[in-house]
Amino acid sequence: MIDCLFGRILSGDLEGSFIYRDDLVAALMDIQPVNLGHLLVVPVRHAAFIADVTPAEAAAMMRVAQRTSAALWASTLKCEGVNFFLADGDAAMQEVFHAHLHVFPRFRNDGFGLKFAPEYYTRRPPRADLDRQAAEPRALLPPE
Amino acid sequence: MIDCLFGRILSGDLEGSFIYRDDLVAALMDIQPVNLGHLLVVPVRHAAFIADVTPAEAAAMMRVAQRTSAALWASTLKCEGVNFFLADGDAAMQEVFHAHLHVFPRFRNDGFGLKFAPEYYTRRPPRADLDRQAAEPRALLPPE
Repeated sequence: MIDCLFGRILSGDLEGSFIYRDDLVAALMDIQPVNLGHLLVVPVRHAAFIADVTPAEAAAMMRVAQRTSAALWASTLKCEGVNFFLADGDAAMQEVFHAHLHVFPRFRNDGFGLKFAPEYYTRRPPRADLDRQAAEPRALLPPE
Repeated sequence: MIDCLFGRILSGDLEGSFIYRDDLVAALMDIQPVNLGHLLVVPVRHAAFIADVTPAEAAAMMRVAQRTSAALWASTLKCEGVNFFLADGDAAMQEVFHAHLHVFPRFRNDGFGLKFAPEYYTRRPPRADLDRQAAEPRALLPPE
């Protein structure tokens, strides 16, 4: 038995505010929203990392992210745009080790943004470098 | 004919460094990478916003994001974690109006991060508020 925050919510042991749930995935409100309406799309089955998510679960996560974002746009919640965000691994800011895709409404001057290293602003790898950087992951791509 | 940067790359009119391509989706290197290996997963067909992406394309985008992230983890590119990021709409920082899911490797002290409004740090809506905020998008969820 894995002690997992989302597992405990999905099992009903802890409370959650659900927008959607089926056999594969669920969507529920984030308890510390970037903006009101911020939700998380999670596989129902425990999967710590994106590599542990089945193809069917991954597909369902994106479809539910798409459908819930349409619902946010259509709602009276303040929503002039939407971001999807997923953190896979500690070094990528993952905090709960049950894969989750953040979906949150955005509006102008909401204070949210991305921070970049100073080098980012001038980093423009030549095409030959991009081609070389593409070659290795292309060769390592797991089968469908 | 829509003048779209990604459309021009996908049609072969402009160069791109591809990791993957099938009938539905493609993955190619971002020309201004957050970190080396930063790639974009896009539908091949023009779709400006996530609402314009078909269910099959959305599912394929996430599957290819998952597969390319496995390839980044397995590669010799510096990768201790991965983020997925999608911007839908101008107010959410979308810059190219052809839906795209960013997939980028992360490592400790790489300088990338998220910026939050000061209120974010203390925002903890009571459960009754979360339940109320969930109710409207739940009722507005488009059909599968």
